Amino acid sequence: MSLPMTVRDPALPGRVRIHEVGARDGLQNEKTAVPTEVKAEFVRRLAAAGLTTIEATSFVHPKWVPQLADAEELFPRVRDLPVRLPVLVPNERGLDRALALGAREVAVFASATESFAKANLNRTVDEALAMFAPTVTRAIEAGLKVRGYLSMCFGDPWEGAVPVEQVVRVTKALADMGCDELSLGDTIGVATPGHVGALLTALNEAGVPDSRLAVHFHDTYGQALSNTLAALRHGVTTVDASAGGLGGCPYAKSATGNLATEDLVWMLDGLGIETGVDLTALTATSVWMADQLGRPSPSRTVRALSHKES
Amino acid sequence: MSLPMTVRDPALPGRVRIHEVGARDGLQNEKTAVPTEVKAEFVRRLAAAGLTTIEATSFVHPKWVPQLADAEELFPRVRDLPVRLPVLVPNERGLDRALALGAREVAVFASATESFAKANLNRTVDEALAMFAPTVTRAIEAGLKVRGYLSMCFGDPWEGAVPVEQVVRVTKALADMGCDELSLGDTIGVATPGHVGALLTALNEAGVPDSRLAVHFHDTYGQALSNTLAALRHGVTTVDASAGGLGGCPYAKSATGNLATEDLVWMLDGLGIETGVDLTALTATSVWMADQLGRPSPSRTVRALSHKES
Repeated sequence: MSLPMTVRDPALPGRVRIHEVGARDGLQNEKTAVPTEVKAEFVRRLAAAGLTTIEATSFVHPKWVPQLADAEELFPRVRDLPVRLPVLVPNERGLDRALALGAREVAVFASATESFAKANLNRTVDEALAMFAPTVTRAIEAGLKVRGYLSMCFGDPWEGAVPVEQVVRVTKALADMGCDELSLGDTIGVATPGHVGALLTALNEAGVPDSRLAVHFHDTYGQALSNTLAALRHGVTTVDASAGGLGGCPYAKSATGNLATEDLVWMLDGLGIETGVDLTALTATSVWMADQLGRPSPSRTVRALSHKES
Repeated sequence: MSLPMTVRDPALPGRVRIHEVGARDGLQNEKTAVPTEVKAEFVRRLAAAGLTTIEATSFVHPKWVPQLADAEELFPRVRDLPVRLPVLVPNERGLDRALALGAREVAVFASATESFAKANLNRTVDEALAMFAPTVTRAIEAGLKVRGYLSMCFGDPWEGAVPVEQVVRVTKALADMGCDELSLGDTIGVATPGHVGALLTALNEAGVPDSRLAVHFHDTYGQALSNTLAALRHGVTTVDASAGGLGGCPYAKSATGNLATEDLVWMLDGLGIETGVDLTALTATSVWMADQLGRPSPSRTVRALSHKES
């Protein structure tokens, strides 16, 4: 019998869509410079492994994210893949660049806390929302889907625990602005399952249903997968993850960052939850990418499966 | 506000007893030779951090587990601590040694699969059970509590997925023999939450209630904490974990092994589940032990908290 053994839990959804962030959120936090063609090949391999939503790159000013300064060169190499390829846009200038290249989905990046809004964007939360509004409006008018990222939804390095009401207010503002999907980020990885459930319930009560929500957990304290399980039990069916566990948060000095897609797929496969992802092909992709970066993948599943093969 | 923020989930128990295995299961799988006094100090620091059940050592023949060959020297140094101090005994000879030193709790170690019984004990599962029976009987007659470990409860490196009925049969045999607690081991770390729930339900139906069960998950595929969450939701209240994530399975080549006690306590603290453990003191203990071993702790919480302090 092959592993993991599949045992369904009827309280969990039958299908989950993985929003793969390795090529954007992962690589923007890696120190190694990655050639454009390697990035393109990474996206192609992720698509071939069955991932259906692959965040490809970011149209942030190259001064802020030099790792993704090649967005104009990268995007045309992957845009014809038969998958969803959202790109991050920080403002109208970024949106213009994305539109010029034929992007069909974009994402904006907001903060649930004043401290992080100040550190990341040098604005208050409301000033940042005001900055996004015309970007979101124009994207929708152009027929694009828009995702809104919310960072620091559970804890913040300056403010500590973040009140649920504060996160609800900012999420609601992005939803009302027209973002069709809201990704709740635990940027410093401190959330636990009860907190996850409480935030989701509060958002539902404020009129944002689980069907419009995604969860984005970091593994800094080893909590990402159990928090994901709590979110699935609540009714969320879109989960952000990063192939091979690429990337992390520049504000947390630990080596661990994004939930590894392989660790997630191992759990979902065991639960009989369909994702369309071929774990063997995905693991091979992450091993290949780790070779490009010159360091082993932090994903435990990647390490276990690749040791087994060798 | 301090982190993690505490949010209760009424479907989970209010209190969990952690069965700390670092000093036994952890150190027996470490390559570095650890001086007896360092082991004793480790147990004392674990007790001072609030752990109430600390598996101290093993009375296995020194030829098989040379790392714990100093059991006779170690146990007297810690036996007066005001905590439960179970020790592993493989057979009547081991029990005699433990009784001579005043041990009040012992554990035996069985396999749910024929392949592992053969590899580990060179016996069939039933021959191994027959070997344990007089050990368990004599221990109970001497007034000791007896824990039964079951290894390979979810998957086995030779046999793949392990049928639930097979695990139920062996667990039931150990329970009927008189073991008051049965620890279900996912020795190769392949379990997922639905499988955990199915096994627990089958055991309950066979007459072994959650109150007699403990779970022992390995993090080889990053699944240990989400499986623990599933077990808590089912009603289990005893969880095995290893301070700093010490140890692992010698049959799995990956570097990751036991669930780290700190990663578990972070989740339980966030869920408002009482353990009595002081996470700061426990993390300091694991950092100290990692220094003794000359390698960093694999626990993500230990890494995150110790980076934060430095």
